[in-house]
Amino acid sequence: MLSSHVYRFGNGTAAGSASMKSLLGGKGANLAEMSSIGLPVPPGFTISTAACRHFIEHDGAWPDGMADEVTGGLRHIEEAMGRTLGDAARPLLVSVRSGAAISMPGMMDTVLNLGLNDEVVAGLAAETGNERFAYDAYRRFIDMFGDVVVGVHHAHFEAAIDALKKEKGVEHDVNLSADDLKCLVGRYKAVYRAHTGENFPTDPTQQLRLAIDAVFASWNNERAIRYRKINRFGGGLLGTAVTVQAMVFGNTGPTSGTGVCFTRNPSTGEPKLYGEFLPNAQGEDVVAGIRTPKPIAEMEAAFPEAYHQLTEVADRLERHYGDMQDIEFTVQEGTLYLLQTRTGKRTGAAAVRIAVDLVEDGLATKEEVIRDRVTPGHLDQLLHPRFADDADYNADVIGVGLPASPGAAVGRAVFSAEDAEAWKAEGKPTILIRIETSPEDVGGMDAAEGILTARGGMTSHAAVVARGWGKPCVAGCGAIQIDYGTKSFSANGTTIKEGDWLSINGTTGEVIQGEQALVDPEMGEAFSTILDWADSFRTMRVRTNADTPGDAAQAVEFGAEGIGLCRTEHMFFDADRLTTVRRMILAGDDAERRAALDDLLPHQRQDFKGIFRAMDGRPVTVRLLDPPLHEFLPHDAEGQRALAENLGISIHAVHARVAALDEFNPMLGHRGCRLGITVPTITEMQARAILEAAVELEKEGVEVKPEIMVPLVGTVAEFAHQRALIRETAEDVFEEQGRRIDYLIGTMIEVPRAALVAGDIAETADFFSFGTNDLTQMTFGYSRDDAGTFLPFYTEHGLLADDPFQVLDREGVGLLVQTATAQGRAVKLDLKIGICGEHGGEPESVAFFYQTGLDYVSCSPFRVPIARLAAAQAHLRSSEKAEPVEIA
Amino acid sequence: MLSSHVYRFGNGTAAGSASMKSLLGGKGANLAEMSSIGLPVPPGFTISTAACRHFIEHDGAWPDGMADEVTGGLRHIEEAMGRTLGDAARPLLVSVRSGAAISMPGMMDTVLNLGLNDEVVAGLAAETGNERFAYDAYRRFIDMFGDVVVGVHHAHFEAAIDALKKEKGVEHDVNLSADDLKCLVGRYKAVYRAHTGENFPTDPTQQLRLAIDAVFASWNNERAIRYRKINRFGGGLLGTAVTVQAMVFGNTGPTSGTGVCFTRNPSTGEPKLYGEFLPNAQGEDVVAGIRTPKPIAEMEAAFPEAYHQLTEVADRLERHYGDMQDIEFTVQEGTLYLLQTRTGKRTGAAAVRIAVDLVEDGLATKEEVIRDRVTPGHLDQLLHPRFADDADYNADVIGVGLPASPGAAVGRAVFSAEDAEAWKAEGKPTILIRIETSPEDVGGMDAAEGILTARGGMTSHAAVVARGWGKPCVAGCGAIQIDYGTKSFSANGTTIKEGDWLSINGTTGEVIQGEQALVDPEMGEAFSTILDWADSFRTMRVRTNADTPGDAAQAVEFGAEGIGLCRTEHMFFDADRLTTVRRMILAGDDAERRAALDDLLPHQRQDFKGIFRAMDGRPVTVRLLDPPLHEFLPHDAEGQRALAENLGISIHAVHARVAALDEFNPMLGHRGCRLGITVPTITEMQARAILEAAVELEKEGVEVKPEIMVPLVGTVAEFAHQRALIRETAEDVFEEQGRRIDYLIGTMIEVPRAALVAGDIAETADFFSFGTNDLTQMTFGYSRDDAGTFLPFYTEHGLLADDPFQVLDREGVGLLVQTATAQGRAVKLDLKIGICGEHGGEPESVAFFYQTGLDYVSCSPFRVPIARLAAAQAHLRSSEKAEPVEIA
Repeated sequence: MLSSHVYRFGNGTAAGSASMKSLLGGKGANLAEMSSIGLPVPPGFTISTAACRHFIEHDGAWPDGMADEVTGGLRHIEEAMGRTLGDAARPLLVSVRSGAAISMPGMMDTVLNLGLNDEVVAGLAAETGNERFAYDAYRRFIDMFGDVVVGVHHAHFEAAIDALKKEKGVEHDVNLSADDLKCLVGRYKAVYRAHTGENFPTDPTQQLRLAIDAVFASWNNERAIRYRKINRFGGGLLGTAVTVQAMVFGNTGPTSGTGVCFTRNPSTGEPKLYGEFLPNAQGEDVVAGIRTPKPIAEMEAAFPEAYHQLTEVADRLERHYGDMQDIEFTVQEGTLYLLQTRTGKRTGAAAVRIAVDLVEDGLATKEEVIRDRVTPGHLDQLLHPRFADDADYNADVIGVGLPASPGAAVGRAVFSAEDAEAWKAEGKPTILIRIETSPEDVGGMDAAEGILTARGGMTSHAAVVARGWGKPCVAGCGAIQIDYGTKSFSANGTTIKEGDWLSINGTTGEVIQGEQALVDPEMGEAFSTILDWADSFRTMRVRTNADTPGDAAQAVEFGAEGIGLCRTEHMFFDADRLTTVRRMILAGDDAERRAALDDLLPHQRQDFKGIFRAMDGRPVTVRLLDPPLHEFLPHDAEGQRALAENLGISIHAVHARVAALDEFNPMLGHRGCRLGITVPTITEMQARAILEAAVELEKEGVEVKPEIMVPLVGTVAEFAHQRALIRETAEDVFEEQGRRIDYLIGTMIEVPRAALVAGDIAETADFFSFGTNDLTQMTFGYSRDDAGTFLPFYTEHGLLADDPFQVLDREGVGLLVQTATAQGRAVKLDLKIGICGEHGGEPESVAFFYQTGLDYVSCSPFRVPIARLAAAQAHLRSSEKAEPVEIA
Repeated sequence: MLSSHVYRFGNGTAAGSASMKSLLGGKGANLAEMSSIGLPVPPGFTISTAACRHFIEHDGAWPDGMADEVTGGLRHIEEAMGRTLGDAARPLLVSVRSGAAISMPGMMDTVLNLGLNDEVVAGLAAETGNERFAYDAYRRFIDMFGDVVVGVHHAHFEAAIDALKKEKGVEHDVNLSADDLKCLVGRYKAVYRAHTGENFPTDPTQQLRLAIDAVFASWNNERAIRYRKINRFGGGLLGTAVTVQAMVFGNTGPTSGTGVCFTRNPSTGEPKLYGEFLPNAQGEDVVAGIRTPKPIAEMEAAFPEAYHQLTEVADRLERHYGDMQDIEFTVQEGTLYLLQTRTGKRTGAAAVRIAVDLVEDGLATKEEVIRDRVTPGHLDQLLHPRFADDADYNADVIGVGLPASPGAAVGRAVFSAEDAEAWKAEGKPTILIRIETSPEDVGGMDAAEGILTARGGMTSHAAVVARGWGKPCVAGCGAIQIDYGTKSFSANGTTIKEGDWLSINGTTGEVIQGEQALVDPEMGEAFSTILDWADSFRTMRVRTNADTPGDAAQAVEFGAEGIGLCRTEHMFFDADRLTTVRRMILAGDDAERRAALDDLLPHQRQDFKGIFRAMDGRPVTVRLLDPPLHEFLPHDAEGQRALAENLGISIHAVHARVAALDEFNPMLGHRGCRLGITVPTITEMQARAILEAAVELEKEGVEVKPEIMVPLVGTVAEFAHQRALIRETAEDVFEEQGRRIDYLIGTMIEVPRAALVAGDIAETADFFSFGTNDLTQMTFGYSRDDAGTFLPFYTEHGLLADDPFQVLDREGVGLLVQTATAQGRAVKLDLKIGICGEHGGEPESVAFFYQTGLDYVSCSPFRVPIARLAAAQAHLRSSEKAEPVEIA
């Protein structure tokens, strides 16, 4: 069959297979595959893409012999179905569909119910005993054929049916009677004639020839060409295949029916058929909601034979695809037809159970289930409380903010941290609602079930703190207008007062009025098994961002292999120390400043000892002080007055210092290493605290691997300055303590310039850690705290595919990451490189970091399991690596 | 003389020349050159760097024959001078100096007065009749020889002289008598003996041999090695040359003397010898200030022969070097010796006059004077009033801010725009002092002679407006504490009240108490000639940044070839329109917004017509609205109340809008094309105003070349969105007007991401214009309004070589400029590329842009002449192009 153009399928055999997509298109190849493994798909044949190419290159002519092959294919269908095209007694209807090697959903042309004419429709009505069904099928066919094959726009037919409904005084299509539809068929034919000058073709063979031509020609219609261009499909595609397949109907009588089923329970993963069916019905009837489908188990009594066959099919499908399937089927006169099978969607709980079961049942390998059967989203569901899967709260959503920390939370609205703590003491769950949060709110944030803020982005104080704790948070919900005075907020016309029930969905950003039901997180044995398997396929390390011993311990439990980012500023905000920090900032001279820092030293040392101990020998990257100093000063009059009194200085001095530290763009201001350089005593104190803690613990026998990280470096000179200072301090500490330890000094790469000169920085840096939050801010020029005014517009209108603060922008920011990595490794082959921005826990970004060759990603504790899976998947999928991005 | 190691010079001949730097070192080659063109330099000889290499490689041994050559060289000096080394009757003293092919000022070892011992010093005293001089020379020789040749640290000798001064109860060296110095010679010898265990060598020949060895050896001393390493001098250097030269003395009697002179007047350029001399004196005497030198013209009477020779020398030097020279000379017993000649420093006025005269006198070509004889700084002096060249106001400087707009201004201190206008009306000059300025201050800024602000950077409102007008401005002077209440400010302990005289230097950033004398700007014929010549060598275009017809006309007068940046926001600030702008911002819906914009349209159209007309056919790049909308709203309670009343809306609505538009980091906020995308009606109105203005003028016969520029583009999609909108609007306008015109649509490249994806943007962009201000801000992560807290520290402490907002950072920002240019041109070979940031008028940056291949630079009107010269120089120096910077 070397010169074959037509590939038959059905009756448990097929000329083609799943591997022949380029010749048969995706649809044709899959139908062949299903048929060849013995699945009862309606019979049909596929005309190859090569034939389409011939058609295009020869001005619409079919290749030699194809016409005979099509006739042969049609005979094959007729025999398999025991029906004949154009035979009014036992009519065969067919569908004609396009299908290229790569899915092009925008350009698909389809004609259903082909084979109908005035005689055949009458026969169909008689055979099914359902005149309305038959004429409805007929008028749909005329519409579709007219639109697709001869270019009479669908709108013209729609106008005719609208007019008829008006005449009949009915609202819906389903209210039209069989007679109405007969009348409509006449009008549709008139529309067809009016726009083409010809009668609707009554010869089914002619209908088929015209439909095949139309699908071939659609390959080069304008939208298809544009689609291929936009998606950059290369020249490897020949054209579209055409699949002609028998139509089957579940509404031909009491021995017919239709249904959908999952091979396993998609909510729990239980290995048992799950779904529903409806006797004597078409899929449309289920959608119309006129009749209620029955549980799939009841099908056994009604259609014992078909049910038995379905269970066998389900089993065969799982064995073939190695995964739980979602099946659509029709029973026509007792015969089961499979209309479609696809991998079934499932909950997180089901996903991990099914994955483990598949491996235990020998249906899939560990590698396969880790790569394809469990998604990071599945794991995320299991880590946080969530709303029930069937919850339908759309009507109660009063606003949508940023999904700042995943999971669902329910509680009574409170508007201050104090109130949250007070209500908690009374045993009442709360949602803490603030315009934005500050370090002083931490107690109330801890007490609340969830946090909602009107301002601030994905890395605002509320978001960062909440994610660290795994507590649900919706941030920057611009729709809510908070009035602290009346303890209430309004959002899109709804007012929520203190004490009202409120629910938030930190996974989607939704804010929901009322008390939604919650489902508890459910990490079980399967969850651990999946992660253990993932680790066995993972080559990139996963660390965590943690600032306290508690967070560190939590992250280790989740599998963190070190700390990639320990921020030290949160330690400065601790209420006990804030006064000392402020004394440092307001110091009149170097001596005063040094005295204040000396007072902070033992606290910082204690902080680091706790964290080092919790990490027990795992590497800990400590970032030196990063935020601008004004963040530590009170900005309200009362706070400033109290501070002046407390420090025994004049209120004017406080005002002057606050004013001097005020900045137009604090993000681009006096922070990071710029602080450590202009006020070197801060760097000295912090380096000393880290190294003293490490030496003291090593003396106790605790292994410590400190990595000191300089933030916001933009030039080689900045890094050299801080590195020299840290090394001097280290030598002092080692001498005083009589003991040396190993430690590293590295830098954040978070300023675009640092990425551009990374090779020079690598000369003396022990490691790089990409701060992709700031790098994204500066590369795009987006302040993440302000971008809420345009970023949602951008993602909604396709100006950006994703929010770049959530999914790393490969083209721009990613190019800098690649450039810096390449430059760094060119200078120092074994340079340790990681990433500690928010993207470290986002699966697509994790895959990019793996492809770029990073040693580790670091993310908040509750993202660690997700990063472990994502890193394993990235490794397993590494053969699908993206094309290397050009650098200049 | 193939194997020669020693090259003699003096007596109007020389074995070497200026081209032999690698063999003779810079000093040796230049002395040979001067001698060979007949200049009377003291005779001497230079031992080659090859000999040094032999010395190093053979453990301190001299090459064969060198000893004899040195002896011969010494004889040559003795003969030329009529003196003999070691001869007490007519002693010859020599200097021994190092000199490599590349200047290494850190490592130079020098021994002066070599040849002295106890006998010779007595002879010298007798011959000069100046015992004090002789013994002073002797003790200096012992010190220098000890330090340089045998490593007895200078501090030991210093201790001895300090002790002696204490004993004698005198404060200065000059107060020591001849006897004291004799005594000191004895003590120095003792110091020498104590540290070396040997007596000071009395044999002058031995002294010379040891000195030559010491200089050779100094090539590999620690500091020299480090210096070469730091400066990355490659392996091409052989070693150091050693120059031995006769010492001459101007204080040997009444027929001796010393002086300095310029071959032309360095203040005015007048072609006449200018300088001073002092009979019977050494250079030291002039420095010590004990005697007052006489004008050079008086030398003619005292030393007619030497004076005549000097004028001849001056003439020969100018012919040889083709430039005005600064000469140091000594007359010893009637004989003129040239100690040094170098290109003379000069004022801007002198520079342009000399350059034009040199060409007219045939001493230099136009190309040479444009390349080397006039600097951009010279032109800048001529464009602005300045303080007198000899002004000495250092003691009165009370603070230093940013040199925001060059030139000097003097006036009485006022603290509000209203006061500046009122005082101006009374004919009183003022300096307007503000914490920062805003558009409402423009009237007062215009009225004042100069502007001083306490906050804001090089591109703050005050700086930008002042530069546009060429008005002196010092911005961001953190030292001054303004109190509007008392109308005064204090700075470093000084208080300036309203009405006090104040002077500011916008070229240096100095703030000076009191009324300094001013020199008016003096652009004359020579200035124009120089710029015309510069244009003839220039290939890169120079445009201007101008927002008004007046600025545009001014810039054209200065030679601007187009507008590279016409900001439209200043038009929005116009008092008449601000209310309409605010109505647009506070619009309740799209219709209201559109109505407000419709009201603005005729004003904007008028603006553009004025500018297009002023530019008369030259290209005009108009940037669409850039700043965030909150900049247009009043931020004080009174202003907001007035606005609410004016617009007839509630004060709450105004408050709410102000709050909603408030941003944490406005620099990275909702501005630029982000505005034009989320509020497309703004872009539509502006595009319409530009194109309607252009079409209407073309109908009147005025040629117009509009280039519409989209600001702050970071993604291809953003540019595509704005481009489509502008093109649609253009088609509407052309249809309405019944006439088409040519226009371009391009984009700023000012966001790092845009530079990284520039190739994709170039697919549809007609031009790029680098906004290096914002690009620098985002690439470094520096807010230019806030960087004043650390940038001065960085430049002072060498963390940055230059303020990157003044001189383009080639390594980081420059790499992005190069990358974007390369990407853009790869896609579109003739893509028009310019730069419109502040760097467009900074000479070093202009050179970089030329090297990168940009089509034009654009700068403020008063920088246009400077950019024209800088662009010509960049072209003429293009053979010295920097190594191409690596891109990844």
